Amino acid sequence: MQITGSMVIGQQSVFGSAGTVKAINPATNSEFEPAFGLATNDNVEQACQLAAATFDSYRETTPEQRASFLEKIADNILGLGNTLIERAHQETGLPVARLEGERGRTMNQLRLFAKVVRDGVYVSATLDSALPERVPPRPDLRLRKIGLGPVAVFGASNFPLAFSVAGGDTASALAAGCPVVVKAHSAHLGTSELVAKAIQQAANDCGLAGVFSMLIGNGRQIGQSLVAHPAIKAVGFTGSRQGGMALVRTAAARAEPIPVYAEMSSINPVFLLPDALKTKGAAIAQGFADSLTMGAGQFCTNPGMLIALDSPELQSFIEAASAALQGKPASTMLTPGIHKAYSTGVERLNQVSGVEVLAQGQAATAPCAAQANLAVCGAKDFLSNVDLHDEVFGPSSLLIRCKDLAEMQAIAEHIEGQLTATVHATAADYAIAKSLLPTLERKAGRILFNGFPTGVEVCHAMVHGGPFPSTSDSRTTSVGASAIDRFLRPVCYQEFPAELLPTSLQDANPFGIPRVVNGELTL
Amino acid sequence: MQITGSMVIGQQSVFGSAGTVKAINPATNSEFEPAFGLATNDNVEQACQLAAATFDSYRETTPEQRASFLEKIADNILGLGNTLIERAHQETGLPVARLEGERGRTMNQLRLFAKVVRDGVYVSATLDSALPERVPPRPDLRLRKIGLGPVAVFGASNFPLAFSVAGGDTASALAAGCPVVVKAHSAHLGTSELVAKAIQQAANDCGLAGVFSMLIGNGRQIGQSLVAHPAIKAVGFTGSRQGGMALVRTAAARAEPIPVYAEMSSINPVFLLPDALKTKGAAIAQGFADSLTMGAGQFCTNPGMLIALDSPELQSFIEAASAALQGKPASTMLTPGIHKAYSTGVERLNQVSGVEVLAQGQAATAPCAAQANLAVCGAKDFLSNVDLHDEVFGPSSLLIRCKDLAEMQAIAEHIEGQLTATVHATAADYAIAKSLLPTLERKAGRILFNGFPTGVEVCHAMVHGGPFPSTSDSRTTSVGASAIDRFLRPVCYQEFPAELLPTSLQDANPFGIPRVVNGELTL
Repeated sequence: MQITGSMVIGQQSVFGSAGTVKAINPATNSEFEPAFGLATNDNVEQACQLAAATFDSYRETTPEQRASFLEKIADNILGLGNTLIERAHQETGLPVARLEGERGRTMNQLRLFAKVVRDGVYVSATLDSALPERVPPRPDLRLRKIGLGPVAVFGASNFPLAFSVAGGDTASALAAGCPVVVKAHSAHLGTSELVAKAIQQAANDCGLAGVFSMLIGNGRQIGQSLVAHPAIKAVGFTGSRQGGMALVRTAAARAEPIPVYAEMSSINPVFLLPDALKTKGAAIAQGFADSLTMGAGQFCTNPGMLIALDSPELQSFIEAASAALQGKPASTMLTPGIHKAYSTGVERLNQVSGVEVLAQGQAATAPCAAQANLAVCGAKDFLSNVDLHDEVFGPSSLLIRCKDLAEMQAIAEHIEGQLTATVHATAADYAIAKSLLPTLERKAGRILFNGFPTGVEVCHAMVHGGPFPSTSDSRTTSVGASAIDRFLRPVCYQEFPAELLPTSLQDANPFGIPRVVNGELTL
Repeated sequence: MQITGSMVIGQQSVFGSAGTVKAINPATNSEFEPAFGLATNDNVEQACQLAAATFDSYRETTPEQRASFLEKIADNILGLGNTLIERAHQETGLPVARLEGERGRTMNQLRLFAKVVRDGVYVSATLDSALPERVPPRPDLRLRKIGLGPVAVFGASNFPLAFSVAGGDTASALAAGCPVVVKAHSAHLGTSELVAKAIQQAANDCGLAGVFSMLIGNGRQIGQSLVAHPAIKAVGFTGSRQGGMALVRTAAARAEPIPVYAEMSSINPVFLLPDALKTKGAAIAQGFADSLTMGAGQFCTNPGMLIALDSPELQSFIEAASAALQGKPASTMLTPGIHKAYSTGVERLNQVSGVEVLAQGQAATAPCAAQANLAVCGAKDFLSNVDLHDEVFGPSSLLIRCKDLAEMQAIAEHIEGQLTATVHATAADYAIAKSLLPTLERKAGRILFNGFPTGVEVCHAMVHGGPFPSTSDSRTTSVGASAIDRFLRPVCYQEFPAELLPTSLQDANPFGIPRVVNGELTL
């Protein structure tokens, strides 16, 4: 497969005529070929109209048709072979092994949603029989969920495969029966084109041409036009708080406001409880340094904050974590812009009054390489200074030293909403952990014991979401089987003739899906 | 039980000190006793802080505790006896029999949510076992849903019991484990006080003091302060589009934006297909006139629009509907303000160019009585004039005469989001119905065959919701078992020690609820 600089609009490959842009290799900070054509507003219009035109037929495809389509996409992505991995490596600076792992994750996601579609739990099929003798009579009522409509997807820079063109948002929206229009992330345009063509081919092969398009735009204008377009009925986004909130505002200002699922900002506090520090502080220190620097710290779930009680054991932990961090080489970040924001953020953090730098990783020797950073401050400093609350995206973490449990509890209560919160504890710490948990449940979408938050399993029980500002909608997750729920709405059918009922609600249950019948869940 | 003009703030009865207001009897357009004290901002603060303080313990009550609490509320409301019905009748002008029926509905709702809490499906309990041998190893992951936090509820004027202080929003929020702060509707303050005290008594008896408060405020200021308060995490509202959108904007402008479930505006189109008009036009006409004028037309699901093909059968229908409507007496509306808006709305509608009045009900003889109104216009007029698209709240309906099926389809595609859409059809009409259905599914939350949309059954399969502007969030319903989903968010527990797991996620499944285990739904 050749990279041509084209967008995908349904069955068409279109070289945009609003100018060109080239990809940048962050390891060398230099542009490389080919040029990508930028979308016009007409291209946005074409992609949105096509998505709207295919919605009614796409959402009534059978579970088997939709599941096969998702599996075909996975197969086609694997079929791109090393061309995909090599291009992604050049565009993102991420190591080949990591990208191969991420490709596996991307395929697992597509296959998980194929299973979700076949299982049919997501349909929420519910039947209440008519009660003609009751006063007043009860009509026959049946509920199913259908797709919201065409979905706009904005991929993330930090997962060029798993959270991008064929990532979790696209997979779950397609599974829900929603056509998808992706705005390609400018940090991996060639990767995006390759994956978009793999999806296009799968759509053509499955007789579903038109359910997928991908646009290329510079800056924010094309993305904003996409979210403002009347045909678009929901938005999936992973990126910065500023970028996410811009889309939230555009969506809210529409004549018909639409939901935005923006996964934005999280510092992922890690609570180090006393007995855990005492009995396994060194191991925790090593695990922390590994988690912090993995992928140049560019994970939404990077452990950006540690909270611990002051003690000799904490001092030992600091020494072990510092030593581990000092051995970590600087690694290339995704884009020059992200690298610059990281450097500026670390510099600002280290200069805040009350903040002391504990350790740094090895110095950078390449243009966009990030040096890891660990700093410390007191709980009072943190509580009184909002400058310390912002996420620094990259391998930087802030240790907050508390003088007692009340301060630790105050920190937990004070932080904004998070994707994750972690507790390191032994059985001797459980009483403290128990007192923290209600607060952590209110603050985070996932709570971990004795692990690190990087590593987001793709399964049914995962929650990759959380209270604002970690996401714009805490009621959902963007990873795991429940991610499909974001793109659905319920419709009730009252006294429908059997001939006109949707298949999933027919008496014979032709799809064999779980249903709630007269209030009882039946398999 | 005595009406004292007090608010309920947890265990306290508080007579507000920010002025007083009296209830108005719309049948006589005159104030009556006693005076109600208006809330200060301090009262808002007290109620919100109390709700926040009780949230962590309330959400961890057992299903049985929460279900019993809901049932106790229902019993206490019934225990108010005729005092409640008589006061509601005086405040709203609604007939006693209707209010007795509505009280039954209110109790059914509370009991339905008691069943929902005991069933435990809403918890979405999901367990994925650890796979320590896998590379990389999978941790133990478990998901449950918990309440969003304290919920602000704004009751509706048109259902002083079923959509008010102890209505569906309150019942589903309490079921979800969320404390509730109600802003009483000014159209039925005494009714609100009686019901609030019934809830307060139930909370005290169940050891749950503090989970419920009710504030009284004049105008919008107290309501806006409530929605802006940091302790409030979601809002339930039923009322006008203008009122709902004001709350949506306030909620979006908060430092932490929160979801607003506003049920606002719906004209509930009714499609009269040709063979149905031919074979049972007279019966449909009578049913329509009954549905339109029921409760002075003050239902969210009032049939405000008819769509039909021009034909001799349509002319017969018009004659029958006109005759039926002319026999309908004017009935008292809920408030002088609602009556004035109705009169103004009908007057404006009838004067729009292209609109012709077909029939009116009997003239009003009492101050706030509404005269029914049926007008007609052509499809082209409707499509080209947005003045014809607004809801006129009350017993007014607009017939749209189409010259062909393409015009009928264009109307369906052109209307805004609706709570309901209705189709009158015989088997001979199914082909037409089938071509309309995909559009109606995109436009409405509930689609009915051969009935009228008034009458919203409280059951598992009901959807009382729909695309904007019928609601601010089409992903949900405010009536029926799924209404509880509005106030929940998922939390994932990773590698939790057994001692610290929430009961619903423990290995032994102590509550005996359905769970998804390793991807398979198990009962």
